[in-house]
Amino acid sequence: MSDHTASKIPVAVLGATGTVGQKFVRLLADHPWFEIAVVAASPASAGRRYGDVVRWREAVEIPPRIADLTLEESHPPLPGRIVFSALDAEVAGPIEQAFAAAGAYVVTNTRTHRMDADVPLLIPEANAEHMALVDRQQRERGWTGAILANPNCSTAALVLALAPLHQAYGIERLFVSTMQATSGAGYPGVASLDILGNVVPHIGGEEEKIERESRKILGTIGHDGVTPADFRVSAHTNRVAVIDGHLETVSVGFRRAVSPDEAMETLRGFTGSPCVAGLPSSPHPPVEVDTRPDRPQPRLDLDRGRGMAVTVGRVRPCPILDLRMVILGHNTIRGAAGQAVQIAELLVAERRVERP
Amino acid sequence: MSDHTASKIPVAVLGATGTVGQKFVRLLADHPWFEIAVVAASPASAGRRYGDVVRWREAVEIPPRIADLTLEESHPPLPGRIVFSALDAEVAGPIEQAFAAAGAYVVTNTRTHRMDADVPLLIPEANAEHMALVDRQQRERGWTGAILANPNCSTAALVLALAPLHQAYGIERLFVSTMQATSGAGYPGVASLDILGNVVPHIGGEEEKIERESRKILGTIGHDGVTPADFRVSAHTNRVAVIDGHLETVSVGFRRAVSPDEAMETLRGFTGSPCVAGLPSSPHPPVEVDTRPDRPQPRLDLDRGRGMAVTVGRVRPCPILDLRMVILGHNTIRGAAGQAVQIAELLVAERRVERP
Amino acid sequence: MSDHTASKIPVAVLGATGTVGQKFVRLLADHPWFEIAVVAASPASAGRRYGDVVRWREAVEIPPRIADLTLEESHPPLPGRIVFSALDAEVAGPIEQAFAAAGAYVVTNTRTHRMDADVPLLIPEANAEHMALVDRQQRERGWTGAILANPNCSTAALVLALAPLHQAYGIERLFVSTMQATSGAGYPGVASLDILGNVVPHIGGEEEKIERESRKILGTIGHDGVTPADFRVSAHTNRVAVIDGHLETVSVGFRRAVSPDEAMETLRGFTGSPCVAGLPSSPHPPVEVDTRPDRPQPRLDLDRGRGMAVTVGRVRPCPILDLRMVILGHNTIRGAAGQAVQIAELLVAERRVERP
Amino acid sequence: MSDHTASKIPVAVLGATGTVGQKFVRLLADHPWFEIAVVAASPASAGRRYGDVVRWREAVEIPPRIADLTLEESHPPLPGRIVFSALDAEVAGPIEQAFAAAGAYVVTNTRTHRMDADVPLLIPEANAEHMALVDRQQRERGWTGAILANPNCSTAALVLALAPLHQAYGIERLFVSTMQATSGAGYPGVASLDILGNVVPHIGGEEEKIERESRKILGTIGHDGVTPADFRVSAHTNRVAVIDGHLETVSVGFRRAVSPDEAMETLRGFTGSPCVAGLPSSPHPPVEVDTRPDRPQPRLDLDRGRGMAVTVGRVRPCPILDLRMVILGHNTIRGAAGQAVQIAELLVAERRVERP
Repeated sequence: MSDHTASKIPVAVLGATGTVGQKFVRLLADHPWFEIAVVAASPASAGRRYGDVVRWREAVEIPPRIADLTLEESHPPLPGRIVFSALDAEVAGPIEQAFAAAGAYVVTNTRTHRMDADVPLLIPEANAEHMALVDRQQRERGWTGAILANPNCSTAALVLALAPLHQAYGIERLFVSTMQATSGAGYPGVASLDILGNVVPHIGGEEEKIERESRKILGTIGHDGVTPADFRVSAHTNRVAVIDGHLETVSVGFRRAVSPDEAMETLRGFTGSPCVAGLPSSPHPPVEVDTRPDRPQPRLDLDRGRGMAVTVGRVRPCPILDLRMVILGHNTIRGAAGQAVQIAELLVAERRVERP
Repeated sequence: MSDHTASKIPVAVLGATGTVGQKFVRLLADHPWFEIAVVAASPASAGRRYGDVVRWREAVEIPPRIADLTLEESHPPLPGRIVFSALDAEVAGPIEQAFAAAGAYVVTNTRTHRMDADVPLLIPEANAEHMALVDRQQRERGWTGAILANPNCSTAALVLALAPLHQAYGIERLFVSTMQATSGAGYPGVASLDILGNVVPHIGGEEEKIERESRKILGTIGHDGVTPADFRVSAHTNRVAVIDGHLETVSVGFRRAVSPDEAMETLRGFTGSPCVAGLPSSPHPPVEVDTRPDRPQPRLDLDRGRGMAVTVGRVRPCPILDLRMVILGHNTIRGAAGQAVQIAELLVAERRVERP
Repeated sequence: MSDHTASKIPVAVLGATGTVGQKFVRLLADHPWFEIAVVAASPASAGRRYGDVVRWREAVEIPPRIADLTLEESHPPLPGRIVFSALDAEVAGPIEQAFAAAGAYVVTNTRTHRMDADVPLLIPEANAEHMALVDRQQRERGWTGAILANPNCSTAALVLALAPLHQAYGIERLFVSTMQATSGAGYPGVASLDILGNVVPHIGGEEEKIERESRKILGTIGHDGVTPADFRVSAHTNRVAVIDGHLETVSVGFRRAVSPDEAMETLRGFTGSPCVAGLPSSPHPPVEVDTRPDRPQPRLDLDRGRGMAVTVGRVRPCPILDLRMVILGHNTIRGAAGQAVQIAELLVAERRVERP
Repeated sequence: MSDHTASKIPVAVLGATGTVGQKFVRLLADHPWFEIAVVAASPASAGRRYGDVVRWREAVEIPPRIADLTLEESHPPLPGRIVFSALDAEVAGPIEQAFAAAGAYVVTNTRTHRMDADVPLLIPEANAEHMALVDRQQRERGWTGAILANPNCSTAALVLALAPLHQAYGIERLFVSTMQATSGAGYPGVASLDILGNVVPHIGGEEEKIERESRKILGTIGHDGVTPADFRVSAHTNRVAVIDGHLETVSVGFRRAVSPDEAMETLRGFTGSPCVAGLPSSPHPPVEVDTRPDRPQPRLDLDRGRGMAVTVGRVRPCPILDLRMVILGHNTIRGAAGQAVQIAELLVAERRVERP
């Protein structure tokens, strides 16, 4: 535990030694608002120096101050009101609930609570207004904190790109076939013998997550919570030999006819709410449109908006639905740690968490 | 030019030094009916020893007898009535026509003549009856030979797998998103800098070929030629870091409701006509159904039926159309040279070409 | 346990569900002399059907007869006198000893006993005479069976290729830098995040194994056992993004000057003893010399001799020692299961194990 | 041609559309001293907009100001006295000479002039004093400009890492086996069919370059030019499936015994001359020592010092020579464009080129 800088908000990272945990550490190392006060891991690692335990896999050096932190156990209280959770789904439930009950805002990348009726499932540019579920959650559960969830990684890229089109034209039917990076499965995750020179046309539970989460995220919030958006989704998910970056081919049908040019204009004009656009992690623009015939590509286009922007390319007519397109998003930044940080920023911008 | 074995049918291979040409050489080296009498290439190479010119990329050694053949120029007459063409599309047209006019049956892997109204576009198990177009072609063009075309590689796998379902239930709408191997682009073809750790969501002209050729292959032949099948196709084509094997995720809607079990039963029962099933290159069965949750995969399932069978897996309901599934085919065997050899075998079985 | 064919020698495979165990199953499925009578695995799997337990990763279908076998526990007695061990090094020691004490010839791919003074470390073409250690082992340990070891995978390819040169010219100094396939680490083994688009310049314990085992294999057997060959080895080992096939760059100095042509002539003339050359698994020739400037390559040359031959290329002068060259071997066939089967064949050829 | 910023030095980039040319454009886009005034290419492209001609493959967007430049032909005069050459070796010779004769300092990444007796072959931290060859070159050739050469990419990383050891202990013998990225071959360069899941143990001319260039770079400059360092080099070069980053395993013998600790201390203390250390592109330190057992790795360590530092790991005794180690360098930054920019900076620091 470190003495935090007076002017920054202390935060904790649960599951800090895993792949997503490392990404949190990297992204928070120089954050203008937040400062890591605590890194926590399993009881087996608690009490040891972070830098000695973590098998650091980021391509930049581990931030020295964080490397020197002593790992804590994952139970409250920990300093600060913002907790980032990169816990395994197997253990996340009770731990995250305990923190929320103890007054922390838990921004979780884990699937456990995503579909809970009173847990907002957030892509800030797309559905910041779902944050209102926090009030219901606190009221009904008697908590002073809350749990806020980040969508599944392939859903995050897909829905951010489609949100402006849904708002403008109303999605009715959606086909998506993904080509997902191996970092989405964590470390060690996908065995090299399974993916070198190969494609695996199956990712456990992923298709259901896309179909379910996309409707909740694009749903309408009212007094009774979120009414899921009324469209049908058919997902095919595949793992490919790529380190980072989920590429998705999409066909989509709307409530009214939409031309490629009209759709691209809508995407280009999309900014998210001013409140969200002003967050430190928000990219400008959130959705980039690329008109080159063979783009986007993971290797060339992944880092746009420092990994927080999604890129849409090949917008063209679909012989069956209205439009075909290709969507690329960074699965461990926009699809995981980066967006979780952005959600925490939104908590601050909405003054749910006070600055020092 | 070699003295051919008395009991075998002499054949020529045009474009014999390229990737598909090499696959022809490999597949024909031990063929029970055919024997390579001639390998031909561009004028620049003609007169030189095949083994000295070819940059052989197959994982078995070049057949010594073929290595010793002298490359011929690509114009008629050449010995034998069967000519396999692996020519570049840029030059194929007039050369293939000259051979057909001179009495040869030209089985071509090139796109040039595929959509000609009098050229059969053949997947023998699926549409052997389209061979009748040869009669019209010979009659109208005044040729004693003919041109017969092999479909585009991603189309071949797709349509072979779907043919039994179309015959049984009638396809109405078809989504396909492909993940295609780099060998489909020939050699040198795809640059390593473009595909290592990457996906390229574009293959020039490929989507149009799938959409157009699939309807012709599954069309109905009548007095006026082939009436294309009446379904709509929406294709997304992608290049992935795989050497051989096109994997395709498919959603398909039929004229009547079909359950996954029913579809799998239909696929398992598919054999093609007895005439086709008896050809040396025909696999048994032509369509393999795999019920394991993460199959088929290029690395594990590509060589079924010596590369001539396609594998269908993950047959499951589609939330929008009737069924989702995954299809795998060997792009340079079923999708190119292997099927061209099978088409030539069909010419022999139908006695359009006589055995010695 | 199956009723074995009367004319074949029943064998058992320990660790049958792992990567090397699967390779044993594949290689033994059609073996002319041997027939798998037993597949054994950990107690947790014993009693279950092999086909239900194994996560089969070979690119051909699992042999149906073996799939139907019930997994046994790994302790004696099991039917037959030949036991192939693909056990983890952590558990192999006492199990293999128990089988040998109970009368079985245990041909092991595990490192545990390789350097035992009375255990032969065999590459049949190179040092079949080391088999005599079995007599000493049986005498000193009071066993009726014995343990025979297969070298480490990168050592096997290296030493088979160098054996003829050592016999002819006497190696004094040897540099080797390897580029090893991920299958050498088993399954799941190397994480895709570690190797996609990457090289890992470290394989735990591998350099020491190469340095130590190569001297034992090429050592001289006498009354007191094996006197290691008197040369120095400097090894650098690296993991690369290849599925199968270890490629090794080598500089080697001999007791007398040797030209590239002379060395290639020696390699080409190498056959191993007539007894070894007549074994079903022995390739002809065991060492192939390739003079093309960019060969051997894993993707193109790995399957020579059905994975049992090694290929040597780029034999050229070394500015420091005598010769430079490149060596390729199949790490899971010549470097593991294939050579273990060959060692068992040698036991039969020498009548240490009787045929039925 | 653009109006350049008054305070910056205008530079030209020849071969600006190729892989190395693009890297020049990227590195110079925000350079504190230089500003691209001219991009030049083949006559076929001259007169067209750079952004319309280049097939931009960098993972950041093309700098808009450069994209809008009109491509010039590659002959003098062009504005400014510094010319970066990324020309093909086939055409570089007369063009580079013409520019030097016309008064330009041509910093070339091409091999053509590297071994010319009066052309300095520079790694600034290692041999900045070789810059004195420029005086001889100008005197003897009657030029007011000069040609300065960047070493071959695998040589650059190797020699920068070894320079401090050579200065301290005197290299006698050097083995190096490389695993080189495909970007070293330019675009399209290595075909994907050659390198996916493969290693190619041959790079044309590369071994000779390493052996020759390393001795020149580490040679001693005197009145008669550079006396090559007196050590022997044995190089093995391999291409692996990596995009960027050459990894090299090295065994090295010195004139006196050196322990790993001593060598690491020497490497850590290395800074290059104060003049070089102060250049904008110079990394601090130029050679990083990593003591983790499995480092350096291309994917994790390539960007140290913004691609200008080399990393040395696994420094350990060698059973034959003194030390073994692993060296990693960025082949298109330290091994090409980045170091060429650093050489040009040295020209400015030495006041051979005046600032505006």
